[in-house]
Amino acid sequence: MRAEVIFTGTELLLGQTLNTNAPHLQQVLASLGVDLYYQVTVGDNLERLAQAIAQARERADLIIIGGGLGPTEDDLSREALAKSLGVSLVFSEEALKIVRRFFDARSLPMSANNLRQALVPEGGMVLDNPVGTAPGIILEHQGKTYILIPGPPSEFRLLVDEQVKPYLVQKLGAQRKVIRSRVLKLCGIGEATVDERLGELLRGANPTLAPTAKFAEVHLRITAKAGSPEEADQMNAALEEKVRQRLGEYIFGSDEETLADAAVRALLEGNLSLATVETFTGGLLAYQLTNAADAGRLFRFGYIFGPERVNWPVSSFASEKELAEQLASWGRAKAQADVCVAVTGREKNSSGAAVYIATNRGGRGRVGEFHLWGSAQDIKERAVQIALALLWRMGKSV
Amino acid sequence: MRAEVIFTGTELLLGQTLNTNAPHLQQVLASLGVDLYYQVTVGDNLERLAQAIAQARERADLIIIGGGLGPTEDDLSREALAKSLGVSLVFSEEALKIVRRFFDARSLPMSANNLRQALVPEGGMVLDNPVGTAPGIILEHQGKTYILIPGPPSEFRLLVDEQVKPYLVQKLGAQRKVIRSRVLKLCGIGEATVDERLGELLRGANPTLAPTAKFAEVHLRITAKAGSPEEADQMNAALEEKVRQRLGEYIFGSDEETLADAAVRALLEGNLSLATVETFTGGLLAYQLTNAADAGRLFRFGYIFGPERVNWPVSSFASEKELAEQLASWGRAKAQADVCVAVTGREKNSSGAAVYIATNRGGRGRVGEFHLWGSAQDIKERAVQIALALLWRMGKSV
Repeated sequence: MRAEVIFTGTELLLGQTLNTNAPHLQQVLASLGVDLYYQVTVGDNLERLAQAIAQARERADLIIIGGGLGPTEDDLSREALAKSLGVSLVFSEEALKIVRRFFDARSLPMSANNLRQALVPEGGMVLDNPVGTAPGIILEHQGKTYILIPGPPSEFRLLVDEQVKPYLVQKLGAQRKVIRSRVLKLCGIGEATVDERLGELLRGANPTLAPTAKFAEVHLRITAKAGSPEEADQMNAALEEKVRQRLGEYIFGSDEETLADAAVRALLEGNLSLATVETFTGGLLAYQLTNAADAGRLFRFGYIFGPERVNWPVSSFASEKELAEQLASWGRAKAQADVCVAVTGREKNSSGAAVYIATNRGGRGRVGEFHLWGSAQDIKERAVQIALALLWRMGKSV
Repeated sequence: MRAEVIFTGTELLLGQTLNTNAPHLQQVLASLGVDLYYQVTVGDNLERLAQAIAQARERADLIIIGGGLGPTEDDLSREALAKSLGVSLVFSEEALKIVRRFFDARSLPMSANNLRQALVPEGGMVLDNPVGTAPGIILEHQGKTYILIPGPPSEFRLLVDEQVKPYLVQKLGAQRKVIRSRVLKLCGIGEATVDERLGELLRGANPTLAPTAKFAEVHLRITAKAGSPEEADQMNAALEEKVRQRLGEYIFGSDEETLADAAVRALLEGNLSLATVETFTGGLLAYQLTNAADAGRLFRFGYIFGPERVNWPVSSFASEKELAEQLASWGRAKAQADVCVAVTGREKNSSGAAVYIATNRGGRGRVGEFHLWGSAQDIKERAVQIALALLWRMGKSV
């Protein structure tokens, strides 16, 4: 099966919105072995959207349209599909129930505009949307499958995972090929060194092995295509084993696991509880840690100091570096935790900062100085990554 | 001038990479008044890439291709452009200098593969790339302009800003129109109601007015096309005035301003200092607030409690709601702040949570209960948005 994906939304062509729906849908299609050759983005224009659908029909069996299902006049996916296929739009009681339920659950009045969302191209099937007002639509027409999915990311993801994917699995049946991927995640090593160590392993055709650099991490994606999930998994596992022989010490996790997950897991295995003190990162470190699986079992307390230093627990310090050390020591005692990590820092100029990350474990302190570059938010994210990598190593070394 | 953008890279169709180059280029095109009707993503396939170029030529005057300029065999943009236009690829000494300089500067040996990067379609102009190995290319051919830009984001951005944009400014000359946008941001009102209140204002052609729903916000983009920046700004201001008459009370900010910026600004105007206590959101509220402009002037302290309730400052409470109230009261006193906001909550099931947001100002408390849906992270983000909206209203009402 060959797919073409069309995203509609003028904001997607004016640079106002990053299309995060695309990779999510693409991953699902890839996992089902559906080929995607073209992805087209068009604005909220009936004529151009209808033309894009007409062209997609010539190149693909499955046409997926993301966005354009809202209640307003520039939401045109329903109209464009109907126009392009020459079918009429009909009013669906089932769709209306979905729209109405959203407002009833919130005790809000439904606007007359929302009635547009109950229109469906004739013969179309309505997809429930439990988190928004726009039902999705599937239409089988002259041997082609058309799927319309609402654009807001939380709705898009939910419909793709819970309705579009199962529908495609069933439709593909026996012709379904299996593509399975596994991502190994590394920290503490650069992409070029990873490349060198992997050498000829990077040139395999099936499974393939592809590195990507992300912030302080390198990701290695292993992808096998096979007749069954078991076979693909076995092929991936064999290559993973070879990769681990060469780079095992840098691999902190796999697939959806984040560096925060890995740090929390390692600390739990070391039976260490944790506190955080942040001035520079303003809560981002605590947020990432508390988002990690099982973080509740070790996270004791997080402190965030504003720059005006109210309630400041340390009276004198010679440098920002010493401040980090003192805060880590103070936070550990105060929160009754085994380990405390403290992040302080100061901006050096418009695009760089000196960041200090101190850890204290059972009274023994360590501190590092890091010069980081980028936007203010990038620098905070990098600082958090470094702190998480330190915690991961600390947990592992217990 | 009408543009079409083509991104090439199989990773962009397999969901492995988020296309962050797209919005950057689109913003530059929009700012120059260049219309972009279609953006197409294709894999690393010579035939399909050449076809996409051929189609773009029929719909646009300016064809920009992002990616596919690397040294490896799946980097095909040079070949595809030459093939599609029927011109030959020639070896460029100027391009070779750029490639070689990269390796010389790093005292690295240049691989034979990198010679491919010195090939240029006949008649093409080479664009310097000071941060990578791949030179960009501009080719004027039979009345159309073709621009090839390397895909790595830091290289892409630099070439767009420093070479592609000036080239287009010069080329557009007097025919250059100015497009200026302004975004008004609203909270506390749904998209459909916004639509109804705006009515006929949504149907204007220049400036246009376009709403988008984002989490708990609605954004209204006003976009004017005119002969000069001043004229465009005046047109936008006139429409903004009409929008404010109908929806002013819900507008918290504009353009790049976030809800956290608006909350901090309103609290500063009300001369109120702030503390936060989080159990449910794990630091995200503090992080967003401390990221806001001028937050340092009011942010006193943030507390994050882990679920094991070490150092828990309240001994007994009848409900999660009462806990939120008590934590807000405790945090305000403890941090010596004018206002404290506390967020507690519990998961109701796999995709929902009951969240309690309490504020305490000078001893007077308020608390609200919110039932939120989505992924764990979505729910935390929504809870933070609600807390920020409460703080914004509180600051405004002083």
